[in-house]
Amino acid sequence: MDRNLLLTVEYDGTDFHGWQRQPGLRTVQGELERVLSVLCGGRAEAEGTSRTDAGVHALDQKVTLRGNFGIPAERLPFAANNLLERDVRIIRAEEKPAGFHARFDCTGKTYIYILSGERSVFAGRYKWQLKELPDISLMKEAAGYIPGTRDFACFRASGDRNTESTVRTVSSLEVEEKGRDIRISITGDGFLYNMVRIITGTLVEAGYGRRSPASLREVIDSGDRAAAGPTAPPQGLYLAKVYYGDENGKET
Amino acid sequence: MDRNLLLTVEYDGTDFHGWQRQPGLRTVQGELERVLSVLCGGRAEAEGTSRTDAGVHALDQKVTLRGNFGIPAERLPFAANNLLERDVRIIRAEEKPAGFHARFDCTGKTYIYILSGERSVFAGRYKWQLKELPDISLMKEAAGYIPGTRDFACFRASGDRNTESTVRTVSSLEVEEKGRDIRISITGDGFLYNMVRIITGTLVEAGYGRRSPASLREVIDSGDRAAAGPTAPPQGLYLAKVYYGDENGKET
Repeated sequence: MDRNLLLTVEYDGTDFHGWQRQPGLRTVQGELERVLSVLCGGRAEAEGTSRTDAGVHALDQKVTLRGNFGIPAERLPFAANNLLERDVRIIRAEEKPAGFHARFDCTGKTYIYILSGERSVFAGRYKWQLKELPDISLMKEAAGYIPGTRDFACFRASGDRNTESTVRTVSSLEVEEKGRDIRISITGDGFLYNMVRIITGTLVEAGYGRRSPASLREVIDSGDRAAAGPTAPPQGLYLAKVYYGDENGKET
Repeated sequence: MDRNLLLTVEYDGTDFHGWQRQPGLRTVQGELERVLSVLCGGRAEAEGTSRTDAGVHALDQKVTLRGNFGIPAERLPFAANNLLERDVRIIRAEEKPAGFHARFDCTGKTYIYILSGERSVFAGRYKWQLKELPDISLMKEAAGYIPGTRDFACFRASGDRNTESTVRTVSSLEVEEKGRDIRISITGDGFLYNMVRIITGTLVEAGYGRRSPASLREVIDSGDRAAAGPTAPPQGLYLAKVYYGDENGKET
């Protein structure tokens, strides 16, 4: 019978063309499948919870690997990491019941976005570097309008052709100062395409005083992508945590 | 008359084949000269203080740029950084008297080496990741034998054909714990080829109990590269500070 493994994967997204496999391009899914196919002695399919864009990082991407292969779960990370390049790493592999799926059973995710007021060649891959940090109290005030179960169509990339519902629950949104950085942490049951980056771009506009914090309410009510701010660049974004029913108190 | 600029340059060495220009390879000197030639409207030569190896980083590389060009010093960093890729950046440019040279007038340098006991795809470019951190008190004890004016032939790469004197002054060597990292900071008037990486590899051996701290004295006295430890990998090494006469109290 086929086994069903859940992998926890960490990657630096800078040198990948995003998560999703694409012929001729280096992607995280493509790299994992190439290496796992070698280890499993046959074609391996790795389905991730989140199809992160080029440049976006992951601390806790969850991946379903199904197949008929012999390698023990606890030996898989070490064996795979020996074959993977330095910017992607399997942290853990665990056996799951046949029906479990990394994406469909996911009940929530936390993303982190990091802004920095400090320029450095070392942070360029990992933070959105701004000449001047926005006012954090204005950002916090604007952020206060977002949590809740709402139609977040205004924060969906305009090019997104997906016709499913745009209602999502944002359960928490924190804006914190960390030295010379500002860290935005957002947790929800799911996110529309580019949602976190558009929220970040909009909060930054509020922080610069280019829009009032209270305007966030109108932006959300409008359901209009054009009313929200610009899409923040990918390099500051991290898929930080993926939840399943028992971990965040919300049983599916 | 030719102008003489001193540039302060920061870079992430990971994706460079080291400092020194080499035909067909991406090097820091090569990239700087390519961009500076455009800005200066003619061939620009950029001479660095330290010819760092592939993978070694710099927070404070100093570079002499001589030529007959019109761009004001204070505008050069911004203009050059627009043309440079994200992993190298000119922090500052200042006019210097005709005779000044970044390398020959340098009176000292500080290098930093970072070891980490934590594995992460983000640290892989920037730290030497060890499964287990060595004992820091043993490392400190071993490090205590190094400062002073000594013949450091034992810490020179065996392939180094340079026949100049191997006597150098190490004015300070600190080993500190920083969270789950160990940071080695070493300051001296000059360093032999691979000297900091070989010292690091030797201190790590002492920290693992594979050699006694007191054996450092014999290693130095032997003048024998084979008596010292392995060369630590490049990614943990940073050229952290370059000194000229008036900055570190030692007038040239």
